[in-house]
This record gives sequence, C-alpha cells and structure tokens, in this order.
Amino acid sequence: MAGPIRFWFDFASPYAYFATAEIDRIGAEFGRKVEWRPVLLWAVFKAHGIAPPMDVPAKRAYFLRDMRRSADFFGLPYQEPVKLPLSSHLAARLYYASAQESADKAAALAQRLFRAFFVERKDISDEAVLADLAADAGISARAAQEGMKGTAGRALLERAVEQAIAEKIVGSPHFMVDGEGFFGADRLPHLRWFLAGGRK
Amino acid sequence: MAGPIRFWFDFASPYAYFATAEIDRIGAEFGRKVEWRPVLLWAVFKAHGIAPPMDVPAKRAYFLRDMRRSADFFGLPYQEPVKLPLSSHLAARLYYASAQESADKAAALAQRLFRAFFVERKDISDEAVLADLAADAGISARAAQEGMKGTAGRALLERAVEQAIAEKIVGSPHFMVDGEGFFGADRLPHLRWFLAGGRK
Repeated sequence: MAGPIRFWFDFASPYAYFATAEIDRIGAEFGRKVEWRPVLLWAVFKAHGIAPPMDVPAKRAYFLRDMRRSADFFGLPYQEPVKLPLSSHLAARLYYASAQESADKAAALAQRLFRAFFVERKDISDEAVLADLAADAGISARAAQEGMKGTAGRALLERAVEQAIAEKIVGSPHFMVDGEGFFGADRLPHLRWFLAGGRK
Repeated sequence: MAGPIRFWFDFASPYAYFATAEIDRIGAEFGRKVEWRPVLLWAVFKAHGIAPPMDVPAKRAYFLRDMRRSADFFGLPYQEPVKLPLSSHLAARLYYASAQESADKAAALAQRLFRAFFVERKDISDEAVLADLAADAGISARAAQEGMKGTAGRALLERAVEQAIAEKIVGSPHFMVDGEGFFGADRLPHLRWFLAGGRK
C-alpha cells in the first residue's frame, strides 16, 4: 500500500475542521491511510517564528468572516467558537492517550471534539467538558482523566509537536504525503490532483 | 450592471499571477467588471502590522515549493523569479499612469509585466527593463519615463495603497466585490460560488 497522508492539525483550528470530511474521502479514494496528528499550533508557530494570524487585527477580522463563509462553502454546520485561539493541549493529550487504547474510540473522539467546539460552542479547554465528550466517544472517566493529566498523553503530544516542527509544518491543517506538504484546507484540490498524478 | 470586482494585487506576487486568467473569466461569466489595482504589498503589510511571510524561513521554504506546484496546478508557465519579494513601485506607477491614457495599453502592460517576472525571469524593478516592457505594450519611451518618475503615477499609486489599507486588504491577491473580501488565489472557487448566489 502507498504511504500514508499525515494530517497535522490543531483541534482549535476551524480550517482543520473544514478539511476533516474531505481528507478522509481523499484517503479512501486513493488508498492512502490518513493519520490524524493533533498538535499545538502556538508551539509550532513559536518554533518557526511565525506570528499567529489571529493576533493581527486586520487578519483576525478577515479570517473570522472567511471562516463563517468557508463553512457554508464546504456545506458544514458552524458557529463561531467561544474563543479563538484556544489552547487545545488537554484535548490533544486525551486524543493520543485514547489512540493507544483504541483507534476507533480516538477517531470518534476527534469528530466529537470538532463538533463540540465548532458547532455546539463548547469550551474544549475545560476538563469537565472534555470528560463528557470522552464519555460520548466510549472512553471511561478514569481513562479520560489519565489521558488529560497522565504522563503518556503528555509525552505523545510533545513528540508529535517535535515531529511537526521537524517536518516544517507551517499551519493547520497541513498535509504531508510522499514528502510533499500541503498547507490549508484550500490546498485539498491540489492534494487530490497530486495524488492523481497531476504533477510530473 | 452589477458592481465591479476590485482585484488588489502586487506585481511581484506569484499568487496574483496565478489568479489573473481565472479572475477575468469569472468577471466575464458573471457580468462584473474586473478592476485591476496594483499596490505595494509591503506598505499594506506595514500598515496592518502583518509580518511578510517570505521573511519567515519555514514559510519561505514552503511557499517557494507551493508556488512552483501551484503554477502546474493552474496550468501556467512559471520560473522562480530573480528575487522575491521585489519592490514593484515603478511597475505599479507605470501601470496607473498608462491606465490614464489607455485602458487597453495598461491591460497589455499588466500581462506583459507578469510574464516578464514569472516566466522570463526579468527584473521588473529595473527601469530599463520596464521601458522595454512598456514598449511591448505600445507605450512610448517618453510616456514610460513619465509614468515611472512623474508625479501622476506616484500620486495614483499612493492613493491605491491608501484605499487598499482602508478596505482591509490582507495580502495579494485580494478580491473585493459587493463589500465581501476574498484573499488568495485559493479563494477563487469561493468567489465564484458567492457570485453564483451560493451564500444565503
């Protein structure tokens, strides 16, 4: 089987949410496994010296409007989140710890996290909220607590962030396949074209 | 007739070049005049406090690769320019001064400038190069000199930059239509969808 598509993203990234359905469709269509890899975008930005776009007033105004419009464009439900940016470290740790136990539960959790933050306006930096969402994905209260606060989840997330920085990820979502990087939900058509052999 | 599409761009922006053919097709298709408005991206960035992406090594590496690939994706000829970024103030002044005399010559000049910079690797910040390109577009040597160095071209460009800043342009290309802004060649499908009434 051909190599995987690594889907680097931050759980608090609207453009990652917009890309979720399409990247799984692309993976299925081209026989590529899609590896979901949440990271902390602020840590990646910091390592590369990238100024967070939402810190610049003109960009923030543009992107808040573009996010709402992009959701309509992609045909996805969307409510502006309770805060942007938001620190997604507990959510990402919980994801990696859960993936150790069950890939299916981790996948269900990721979908649940995106819906909670971008549709239901829940605060996914809140431990109690995260515990409820974990339960929705079939993860026990004890496992959720251990995932958020234990050493395993923390170590797995740290390693993911280091790898993302080493792979020169510049934002969220950023897709890596066959050594080629595609940054942004707006590069999904380029990724599809690349996999179809569009590039010589 | 419905309102125009203002096409804000920098003559040294690869993504503006990639958008040129498609934006004119969209304008024709939806009966919207496309107003080409070159600006100095560095001045817009400075006014908004935006860090130029090509100043960040990880972004520069990503975008240089993405530019080459995007050209293939859009089916356009492309050679990496002699330098990026490049100050396009003489080119933009020449464009505005020429547009005062003849819209057709200015349109021919714009196409010629993009081809020279992105296909032929010419330095479009050089006065002698610009004079030759102006001649190709049917602009006399005297008019070209006056356009680059006279007060009219300078004043028109300054006004364009001020208007771009007031319209909260955040990069190049940035399209404005019916009060709605679309930033990036990758937003052309969104613009098309918007004009087709896709958004409620």
